Amino acid sequence: MTDSTKISSSSLNRIPAEILCAQDYETLAQRFIDPTHYAYISGGSGKDLTLDANRIAFARRSICPRLLRDVSKGSTALTLAGQPLPHPILLAPVAYQTLAHPLGELETARAAAALQSVMISSTLASNTLEDIAQQAGPQRWFQLYLQPQRKITLDLLRRAEAAGYTAIVLTLDASIQIPSQRALRAQFCMPQHCVAANLTGYEPAPTDTLSHNESRIFQGVMRHAPTQNDIEWLLTQTHLPVWFKGVLHPEDACLLQSLGAQGLVVSNHGGRTLDGAPASLTMLPAIRQAVGCDYPLLFDGGIRSGADIFKAIALGADAILIGRLQLYALSVAGALGVAHMIRTLHEELEATMALAGCATLHDIRATKLLRADDIS
Amino acid sequence: MTDSTKISSSSLNRIPAEILCAQDYETLAQRFIDPTHYAYISGGSGKDLTLDANRIAFARRSICPRLLRDVSKGSTALTLAGQPLPHPILLAPVAYQTLAHPLGELETARAAAALQSVMISSTLASNTLEDIAQQAGPQRWFQLYLQPQRKITLDLLRRAEAAGYTAIVLTLDASIQIPSQRALRAQFCMPQHCVAANLTGYEPAPTDTLSHNESRIFQGVMRHAPTQNDIEWLLTQTHLPVWFKGVLHPEDACLLQSLGAQGLVVSNHGGRTLDGAPASLTMLPAIRQAVGCDYPLLFDGGIRSGADIFKAIALGADAILIGRLQLYALSVAGALGVAHMIRTLHEELEATMALAGCATLHDIRATKLLRADDIS
Amino acid sequence: MTDSTKISSSSLNRIPAEILCAQDYETLAQRFIDPTHYAYISGGSGKDLTLDANRIAFARRSICPRLLRDVSKGSTALTLAGQPLPHPILLAPVAYQTLAHPLGELETARAAAALQSVMISSTLASNTLEDIAQQAGPQRWFQLYLQPQRKITLDLLRRAEAAGYTAIVLTLDASIQIPSQRALRAQFCMPQHCVAANLTGYEPAPTDTLSHNESRIFQGVMRHAPTQNDIEWLLTQTHLPVWFKGVLHPEDACLLQSLGAQGLVVSNHGGRTLDGAPASLTMLPAIRQAVGCDYPLLFDGGIRSGADIFKAIALGADAILIGRLQLYALSVAGALGVAHMIRTLHEELEATMALAGCATLHDIRATKLLRADDIS
Amino acid sequence: MTDSTKISSSSLNRIPAEILCAQDYETLAQRFIDPTHYAYISGGSGKDLTLDANRIAFARRSICPRLLRDVSKGSTALTLAGQPLPHPILLAPVAYQTLAHPLGELETARAAAALQSVMISSTLASNTLEDIAQQAGPQRWFQLYLQPQRKITLDLLRRAEAAGYTAIVLTLDASIQIPSQRALRAQFCMPQHCVAANLTGYEPAPTDTLSHNESRIFQGVMRHAPTQNDIEWLLTQTHLPVWFKGVLHPEDACLLQSLGAQGLVVSNHGGRTLDGAPASLTMLPAIRQAVGCDYPLLFDGGIRSGADIFKAIALGADAILIGRLQLYALSVAGALGVAHMIRTLHEELEATMALAGCATLHDIRATKLLRADDIS
Repeated sequence: MTDSTKISSSSLNRIPAEILCAQDYETLAQRFIDPTHYAYISGGSGKDLTLDANRIAFARRSICPRLLRDVSKGSTALTLAGQPLPHPILLAPVAYQTLAHPLGELETARAAAALQSVMISSTLASNTLEDIAQQAGPQRWFQLYLQPQRKITLDLLRRAEAAGYTAIVLTLDASIQIPSQRALRAQFCMPQHCVAANLTGYEPAPTDTLSHNESRIFQGVMRHAPTQNDIEWLLTQTHLPVWFKGVLHPEDACLLQSLGAQGLVVSNHGGRTLDGAPASLTMLPAIRQAVGCDYPLLFDGGIRSGADIFKAIALGADAILIGRLQLYALSVAGALGVAHMIRTLHEELEATMALAGCATLHDIRATKLLRADDIS
Repeated sequence: MTDSTKISSSSLNRIPAEILCAQDYETLAQRFIDPTHYAYISGGSGKDLTLDANRIAFARRSICPRLLRDVSKGSTALTLAGQPLPHPILLAPVAYQTLAHPLGELETARAAAALQSVMISSTLASNTLEDIAQQAGPQRWFQLYLQPQRKITLDLLRRAEAAGYTAIVLTLDASIQIPSQRALRAQFCMPQHCVAANLTGYEPAPTDTLSHNESRIFQGVMRHAPTQNDIEWLLTQTHLPVWFKGVLHPEDACLLQSLGAQGLVVSNHGGRTLDGAPASLTMLPAIRQAVGCDYPLLFDGGIRSGADIFKAIALGADAILIGRLQLYALSVAGALGVAHMIRTLHEELEATMALAGCATLHDIRATKLLRADDIS
Repeated sequence: MTDSTKISSSSLNRIPAEILCAQDYETLAQRFIDPTHYAYISGGSGKDLTLDANRIAFARRSICPRLLRDVSKGSTALTLAGQPLPHPILLAPVAYQTLAHPLGELETARAAAALQSVMISSTLASNTLEDIAQQAGPQRWFQLYLQPQRKITLDLLRRAEAAGYTAIVLTLDASIQIPSQRALRAQFCMPQHCVAANLTGYEPAPTDTLSHNESRIFQGVMRHAPTQNDIEWLLTQTHLPVWFKGVLHPEDACLLQSLGAQGLVVSNHGGRTLDGAPASLTMLPAIRQAVGCDYPLLFDGGIRSGADIFKAIALGADAILIGRLQLYALSVAGALGVAHMIRTLHEELEATMALAGCATLHDIRATKLLRADDIS
Repeated sequence: MTDSTKISSSSLNRIPAEILCAQDYETLAQRFIDPTHYAYISGGSGKDLTLDANRIAFARRSICPRLLRDVSKGSTALTLAGQPLPHPILLAPVAYQTLAHPLGELETARAAAALQSVMISSTLASNTLEDIAQQAGPQRWFQLYLQPQRKITLDLLRRAEAAGYTAIVLTLDASIQIPSQRALRAQFCMPQHCVAANLTGYEPAPTDTLSHNESRIFQGVMRHAPTQNDIEWLLTQTHLPVWFKGVLHPEDACLLQSLGAQGLVVSNHGGRTLDGAPASLTMLPAIRQAVGCDYPLLFDGGIRSGADIFKAIALGADAILIGRLQLYALSVAGALGVAHMIRTLHEELEATMALAGCATLHDIRATKLLRADDIS
């Protein structure tokens, strides 16, 4: 069931009737993705505590409908760091998309282009950034992981510039990825066809050796964790705006802002790093308050509906990233599925806005959410 | 199972012994209503978040019994906007009642008349307002949806006036109705025999066409959403008192009050519009505080017992509307069922009042509820 | 299975090995009591909301163990309204005890005498107060329901005085008893052998007739609800101290105190009256604060263990009443079971006191409980 | 299944592949320990309320990841009461370890020595303290229960000193141990081969006889409970530093500190004494605040992962004790299992520190945890 041909043949060229809302792709994808791959994609780290927290945080908020508001000129348009966008739905940098569909990121990129959604292409994509760029629309960003060797990092940066990517998103929170126990118990291993296409041409980094007293974590894995020095260096190496992804603490947000970040992505890596980290949504308001009301903030972590997008914007986000739903929709119907998923989310957001009396995203930001169990 | 004959024959002409309390109609109705229709009636919008919130909000409140209070002159009577009523139980404007019983609203109207309960007849009734008026008691109100063409709205108004309806209830919160996913998955579709009888004589509104850049929500569905202008217009077109239904936010309540509303119905449309909206009960106290203690406020959303009615009144309602229970009781035993359901609720309310030491509805309003998990 | 012979033969003359703690009688009793009777006994009113709340309130409190406290002179003794008692465990006035054991209250009374536990004999006992008095110890109290005719109330009072009862407990909170839906659905009806033995000699009260406009609740059932006038009258009719049972609100407590009550029983009738009333334990601290620290307060509602007794005393009770556990133990092993249940509770209380560093009940009252989810 | 040969043969000499995290030993041990023994080991007292509370308290806290922190010199080393330790993971004094493995504490001691973990040997070990000392590393402590006869207590102390134990841990909270109802229902009884090896040479204490009016608890079991006098005496009898274990209340902590304790172990005996006691973690912050920031505090109660260790240290602990996981790992693979369990916890702690930006345990102490459901 894991060979790509099989997945290919089962991917549809129409939207199944049972997709009633964007989140339905989550359920339906289980028919299109190998179970062990699904465990890997859907799982968080460890026992999924943070994965679950991301969803619970949304469920705890409610939106009060409003009456008689004029939304006849309503629109989800925004300007993000100077760029006009028709809606606030971006595609998160999800790695190894051939796990879900044989053409992987190429399909995703076509969907993003069709829906004018920013696609953020991953360093660990299973297609090269150059191939993805050919399918992508003008709004394509490149997600960067710092490599052990700066020359390789630099080469990736140059390639992204050459391929017309318009922004860099440096991920900071994934120095250690603690695998999902569900994935481990399902005995997930990456299939052979699924490689980090951007990196296959580079010679591997020399293996670090540890002395007896050194820690595999502190002196091993963390040796190459991004430092402030790395960031300062990176910012001198490119003319592209640089975003930083994986911010959860207001102090870290302020530091990155002061170093010259174009903006930040509030994220806990979809619950895939520190199991037991708070929900992204929980930390969002304090981060918005710390960076000021005009600073660009993106958000990911648990969004499954237009109402969720509304809530994230109400709590401080300018726009949001879609992670797992992207892969689920991709698995079901390729580019068509991803495009339909984005369009469905978009319309769910519009309906929520209309019912909440918000004609613009700015109106959302001025909306006070209620705790789901508030009783005055 | 969906043809009306079958439902008719299974509707009883006696009250089944298993009805021990008003809420039991909810369970029993499942034997009398086609499962897909039951899914449509019982469902809220989307994932039923608000539907569930409506019930949870009641469960979270408790009522402290009182001793030695003289309730020998106890009564549930009230004066609502100048009209004396023997009890605070009104029938909400539930559409398409032939889904539950072949005679639909005609049976409901007879029950309301017998129990001196205000019946609010829906624009989307499956009987005409004129036919319903013939069965109804003197306290009959007409629920109005603004129509795309003002001349049709006006015609409905004139017909309601002519048929002796004594108040108009304009529903404001249903510009977009997001269907229940349960109903969708049950593949509900309105049976052919079930039509909006009041509207069949009018020519359909011309179809709106959208340009490429227009939103199906903002420039489509919401084009005909009620505006302040519509309300001001409507209030000049009738001598009848006009209530507004679907209010959840205190600011909206104040606006409508200032525009000349006779009173308001605090409601989230039974959890059928914005899924994720707060419980009606959650918002009620703030709305009561906003409009002042003498302004007429009705309430619906989750009431299943006399204790629930007590709680809604304690938190600010003057009277309450019964929605789904109405259809459930109708399906079980027609007019007899609806009448019995109202009488049962009434007696449950009286018993709760007696145990809580309240001889009048005013006494209830002076009662402080406790959070169910309060620990001093 | 409901005939008394059968129950008799299955009642044990030894304590079963599976009784590891007092609460185990709750489970084990299901083997000794007819299921429909068990539903009646174990059920609360309506949907058991208050029944469950009584238990949850205990679970929400925790007791912090203490070290190095000298409890070598530890004792559970107390003086209750001037009477010395070896422990604070009283037997609540549970009606119709032949439901659980063919000899009913006679067995219970023998157990109470053996363990020096105050037995409160019910007006609705299935044995006469005179027969019960012959089995009971010197600490026997009589629970009184006001009868529609004062002369019968007075006769009951005189009989109780003549039979050596030393206090009267007037129950105030049961004007309306809403039956358990579980019991109703189990089609419970009182077996013929089970009668209110104290009342069989009196002529029944004349049936009240209601006019068309009168309420079955307000002008019917509540016609005979106790009033302040009734209480003032009763207090002039007996030299015995009078306790009042069924108090949940601090204002009612103060009123009864001012009228001359010997003391009060904080109680919601075991969750058998107003379904949705708060837990007795929830209301206890406010009542203790209202009546002052020296006024006698008893408590019932949800106690199943010595730790529960500790918690009730810590929150303001002087002593507690055991209701359902009494019947459960009675059903399992008659007088022996009830005695063992009391002794087990007593020892559980002692162990809790020892671990919490309390040598006396006064030490318990000085103990601050924690909310089970307190995090400082 | 309970004879030691059988357990021996099923204990592995390799780490099973399904152990993905330290907590997995909890599940896997069920294949290696007799079910009735497992019930005894895993159970708390009574209904496991406190056992569960210990785990819930951890789940309620979350840890916010941090970015760009330099942890390249990271280390888990600490100095505990003057002694340098490579990590804060100690082995709690778990009694009767031959329940889990035929060699019991001898295997555990070898693991502790290999991982430089302090082993705290129990008075109730199933091997003698002298035999354990031969397997143990230099950091071996002896857990002491005061014996009814001081001469035996003194002899145990002298033997511990002679065998090179470097500290005494006096357990104060186990005067009464209320057995787990799960263990009782599983009909657990200590197998014959499993004895308190340290105590077999002493003549048993004379049986206490109680007069009729004396309480089995207060004048019986508690007769030998530790008093302040006992502690003052003990502290004069040894040159070894003395820790006290079982502290939950800040006032008790201050008293013991003032009497000259080397340090304290915040503990509720793994939920095995007062069922309904608060979680150890709940009480930790108040105790830390009471004793000051430099006083040595150990912690046990519910730790199952490195993230849990992080949380305990953040809330005030200097180091932590592992209880049940110790036995579980012992049952699965003897010394190898225990060593692997410690190493796994250690690495989990390091990974948590790295992701939370903490290079040292002091950094952890400066970290503010969030409530898992905090919403700002």
